Amino acid sequence: MRHTISILVTNEFGVLSRVSGLFSGRGFNIESLCVAETTDPGISCMTIVSIGEERVLEQITKQLHKLVNVIKVHEFTKEERIERELALIKVQVTAENRAELLSVVEIFKAKVVDVSPKSYTIEITGDHDKIMAVLELLRPFGIKELVRTGSVAMARSPKTK
Amino acid sequence: MRHTISILVTNEFGVLSRVSGLFSGRGFNIESLCVAETTDPGISCMTIVSIGEERVLEQITKQLHKLVNVIKVHEFTKEERIERELALIKVQVTAENRAELLSVVEIFKAKVVDVSPKSYTIEITGDHDKIMAVLELLRPFGIKELVRTGSVAMARSPKTK
Repeated sequence: MRHTISILVTNEFGVLSRVSGLFSGRGFNIESLCVAETTDPGISCMTIVSIGEERVLEQITKQLHKLVNVIKVHEFTKEERIERELALIKVQVTAENRAELLSVVEIFKAKVVDVSPKSYTIEITGDHDKIMAVLELLRPFGIKELVRTGSVAMARSPKTK
Repeated sequence: MRHTISILVTNEFGVLSRVSGLFSGRGFNIESLCVAETTDPGISCMTIVSIGEERVLEQITKQLHKLVNVIKVHEFTKEERIERELALIKVQVTAENRAELLSVVEIFKAKVVDVSPKSYTIEITGDHDKIMAVLELLRPFGIKELVRTGSVAMARSPKTK
């Protein structure tokens, strides 16, 4: 099962290595991981997307809570969260397929951020499924380079006052 | 000095822990790190933004090359790269400041992705400086939550055939 976990940590040497070590030590493969500063420069937020058994994840969460650098651990469920990632995709372009490529860009509300005679670089954001769908559509053009941030997530706000 | 480094690695247990351990072991603080799959599911791309001395980074790069899981290491220079990150920002909103908030969203080509009676969640992409500028402008409204992916980077394409 695919899990999205958000971990608040104090910004100290070695915390990333210790947290990722906990996952790999139990054979949990990390699909993506992001870590960056929050509004408090002393605190970072890590978002981990990982695939594995619920039971093992519970054990990892318990171990995470024991680390002195870990402030908070939260696992998101599908219903409650906004999940987004960003991808930069460099695609081959020819005079013949340029218009078709631009229509894919428009449909997915993506942006062309760099242009050369032979390639367009596209910036796109969305959830994991949207990014996978775009990559599938762009594959026939020829993807020359791809870099993805991995997902970040935030809980949806309650819709009542 | 701020460095942006891209590392291609094989997708195996423990590689993230070993790579981040190399940085922390030499006192190099990681400002942000992203790791996600490439078009080849067996290979991941890590993007690390780190602050420290050039001399120490050279030592780290040498050590990185010695790790069996590391395929390629590339340090970007300011001139050649497109750098982007994504942020989700939950901001307090009132009847009085809603219009002002929406004008900030429009100016920065951001998107409102979740709405509740008391808060708006904004999705924004840009380089590090743009994200910092937006956060500065949104601070007076009251930032309730912030999650950032950290930067990914890609080399610009040559502009001649």
